[in-house]
Amino acid sequence: MAAAGWSARVTALLRRMNSFHGAGSSKALCLPFMVAGQQVGHVLPSVAKYLCQYPAVFLVSRGDGVPACVELNKKLASSEQRTDAVEGVLREMRAQQDFPCLKEWREELYSVMPYFCDTPLFSMERSATPLFGVKRYGTHLNGYTWRNGQMFMWLARRALSKLTYPGLLDNMAAGGIASGLGVRETLVKESQEEACIPASLTALAKAAGTISYTYEGAQGGIYAECQFVFDLKLPEGFVPQVGDGEVQQFYLWPLEKVKEAIGSPDFKPNCAMVALDFLIRHGYIQPDGEPHYVELVEGLHRTL
Amino acid sequence: MAAAGWSARVTALLRRMNSFHGAGSSKALCLPFMVAGQQVGHVLPSVAKYLCQYPAVFLVSRGDGVPACVELNKKLASSEQRTDAVEGVLREMRAQQDFPCLKEWREELYSVMPYFCDTPLFSMERSATPLFGVKRYGTHLNGYTWRNGQMFMWLARRALSKLTYPGLLDNMAAGGIASGLGVRETLVKESQEEACIPASLTALAKAAGTISYTYEGAQGGIYAECQFVFDLKLPEGFVPQVGDGEVQQFYLWPLEKVKEAIGSPDFKPNCAMVALDFLIRHGYIQPDGEPHYVELVEGLHRTL
Repeated sequence: MAAAGWSARVTALLRRMNSFHGAGSSKALCLPFMVAGQQVGHVLPSVAKYLCQYPAVFLVSRGDGVPACVELNKKLASSEQRTDAVEGVLREMRAQQDFPCLKEWREELYSVMPYFCDTPLFSMERSATPLFGVKRYGTHLNGYTWRNGQMFMWLARRALSKLTYPGLLDNMAAGGIASGLGVRETLVKESQEEACIPASLTALAKAAGTISYTYEGAQGGIYAECQFVFDLKLPEGFVPQVGDGEVQQFYLWPLEKVKEAIGSPDFKPNCAMVALDFLIRHGYIQPDGEPHYVELVEGLHRTL
Repeated sequence: MAAAGWSARVTALLRRMNSFHGAGSSKALCLPFMVAGQQVGHVLPSVAKYLCQYPAVFLVSRGDGVPACVELNKKLASSEQRTDAVEGVLREMRAQQDFPCLKEWREELYSVMPYFCDTPLFSMERSATPLFGVKRYGTHLNGYTWRNGQMFMWLARRALSKLTYPGLLDNMAAGGIASGLGVRETLVKESQEEACIPASLTALAKAAGTISYTYEGAQGGIYAECQFVFDLKLPEGFVPQVGDGEVQQFYLWPLEKVKEAIGSPDFKPNCAMVALDFLIRHGYIQPDGEPHYVELVEGLHRTL
């Protein structure tokens, strides 16, 4: 019964983290966000309505003859021009206070591109990306070690001062990939800053795939996210240290305790997904023992 | 240029293996296949038309007031009744010779269920599942070993006598999960039969997730498949032996050679996906070095 309860809680978590794909989401109402002929997001109707005021930056077509979409004005030809023009509009939106997610304004730019591999078309303030359903990328580190033949995972508890998910469980280190930074570069930087892991040690981390999901936030944004996942086997004696104050404490937990936490509200949801992916990839969760095994794996990797 | 060529070939492979989700597929034309109120597949229009002849088994509603779907007659209340009634119709369809995939009739039953975890609603001849878009499950074994500090993978070349994909590269062992068999049970059985791996050795294989994909076959069937993936680290001196004649030869290849083969037509497509998943999970393919990394991971895990 305990196992069935866990299974139901975790499949429910994955459904919430993929709510944009589910029944009753605003997916069907959203307008494609086009830049230079390529789709880079999904714009909420309320946002599209607001953007009509700025035709020099955003062209909102309503579907009379042309396909309904929000398109960045083609006159903005360079990445710099687009970045500056969009930022100008976003700062006015922020001042209006009609869009709650802009209260978390970071002064941090994220690249906007149709696929991760592409040259960025422009950059957008991190807190504004949910208004446009622009896909965001991050890196997460699973730190683990062996003690007496048993595998343990390092987890972090987020500081109470964090803007998002204060006080919840997190992976050993994690962070969004800002414009202009590489995947491993971000991993090394965050691991150093948050957990004082020296770059020479993080260099040993193994890339192990991604998790992908898209959810609608409680306040209406579209969170389309992809996290690059790394595993780092730490020396038995290594203990992470609180670095820049984003973490209040680190725990070294046996996998059974990590697994239990994944099904609880104590874990930041996307970090719980990263830990779940780890437990599956390392064979701690087995198909014959887990009734929703297939749904768990598929729910960790939903494409938009 | 070689890397870009590989990347393009492999993303094209993943698109083909997910063709049912792509533009121009028959997805929008298919009718939901309902059993006891639950959807278990997608029926091609040509198949639905044929099934109208058998109202005691299949009720085909055309959407006049009720939702268009193919429903197993509710009078067939038990799993055995459904299995027998469907098999009777399938044997008549096979005799008609209008449905090419039934030429591969196996006398092997697969479980039909809305999710893998559920109690099967009934069982269906393996070769008929693409006509109904019924999801099929299998197990694949990645056999690997270390020599001189370098990782090598064991691959098999399929016998020329195989009904499907004769002569192509395959994983070390693999096989569909027949009705009534467990995941690990199937893995142990296939590893013993195909590669003479003793059960005591296969018991050490680590579950490592799944790959999921849905494609339309050249002759019109819908192949909705999920493969349970296992990794087995083999002793340096272990050499697999040809067992039941499904394999003609085994190769021990360095990962670079495996990677190259994944982008070539020499590899059975779903087995190439399993090997690709292995290379990603083990960090042999890295996000900073592979422009389509995100697409590769997402393409290995498409949900229906």
